[in-house]
Amino acid sequence: MDAGLKLPLLTTLRRIATPNGDVLHGMKASDPGYNGFAEAYFSMVLQGAVKGWKRHFEMTLNLVCIVGGVRFVIYGDGWSEGDAPVLDAVLSPGEPELYRRLTVPPGFWVGFQGLSVGDNMILNAANLQHDPAEAETVPLDRFPWPPEPGP
Amino acid sequence: MDAGLKLPLLTTLRRIATPNGDVLHGMKASDPGYNGFAEAYFSMVLQGAVKGWKRHFEMTLNLVCIVGGVRFVIYGDGWSEGDAPVLDAVLSPGEPELYRRLTVPPGFWVGFQGLSVGDNMILNAANLQHDPAEAETVPLDRFPWPPEPGP
Repeated sequence: MDAGLKLPLLTTLRRIATPNGDVLHGMKASDPGYNGFAEAYFSMVLQGAVKGWKRHFEMTLNLVCIVGGVRFVIYGDGWSEGDAPVLDAVLSPGEPELYRRLTVPPGFWVGFQGLSVGDNMILNAANLQHDPAEAETVPLDRFPWPPEPGP
Repeated sequence: MDAGLKLPLLTTLRRIATPNGDVLHGMKASDPGYNGFAEAYFSMVLQGAVKGWKRHFEMTLNLVCIVGGVRFVIYGDGWSEGDAPVLDAVLSPGEPELYRRLTVPPGFWVGFQGLSVGDNMILNAANLQHDPAEAETVPLDRFPWPPEPGP
């Protein structure tokens, strides 16, 4: 359990090659960022499209990109014009250094963009079941989308 | 919680279309077949390749195919020559009637085969963390691979 996480956290994951098809780690109860489990669901995002900005009041997100590549941009709740994102990072199972899990504690504004021509898909292994009352969404122009992905 | 499940269970899942990319349900704590959560991991399987046969002693598997198509064949622990599989089913996110979760209680022999030319990927949302001592694997020729997929 890691209920006390105050900032988004990136955790490198293992992708294990086997002759008939790889095995990819996702989330273990003993992993950094684990804060309980109540629902696993998948989101796809088309190349170039951005989904956001969404802020959860209670849910801790545990995000793993398992197909394609997805860029996440996260702003803090106290954002002012000109402030940089708290996090700007690409997740992808295609490169070992980018195969990593993103844990987002409640209270942050999250946007994400599809990077690959084909499918882009993320897992959210969440500590709460979906509840529309537990999150809010604001229009895409509420926060800037930085021109280039961060490291 | 559904610790008392005696047979493999198929549960239809929702895939929700949205303009920027679909959302696919996976597993909720309140869903049929849920038996706790300790690890989520992904397995890929190449087209035509079969992974198996593996039997878990304690783990309940909750399997969702989220890329391509995968055929699962399951035999009971008391199998004799000539017995049909307990289950022979295709899972795929590409067709609504095939987008379904397969729950496998401990004690069954499981094999699975990739069906699509591209990637084939499954999620296992398991009630236990990976532990090699908790499962056994036997050679592929130990059980028959039926010639045609079941419904």
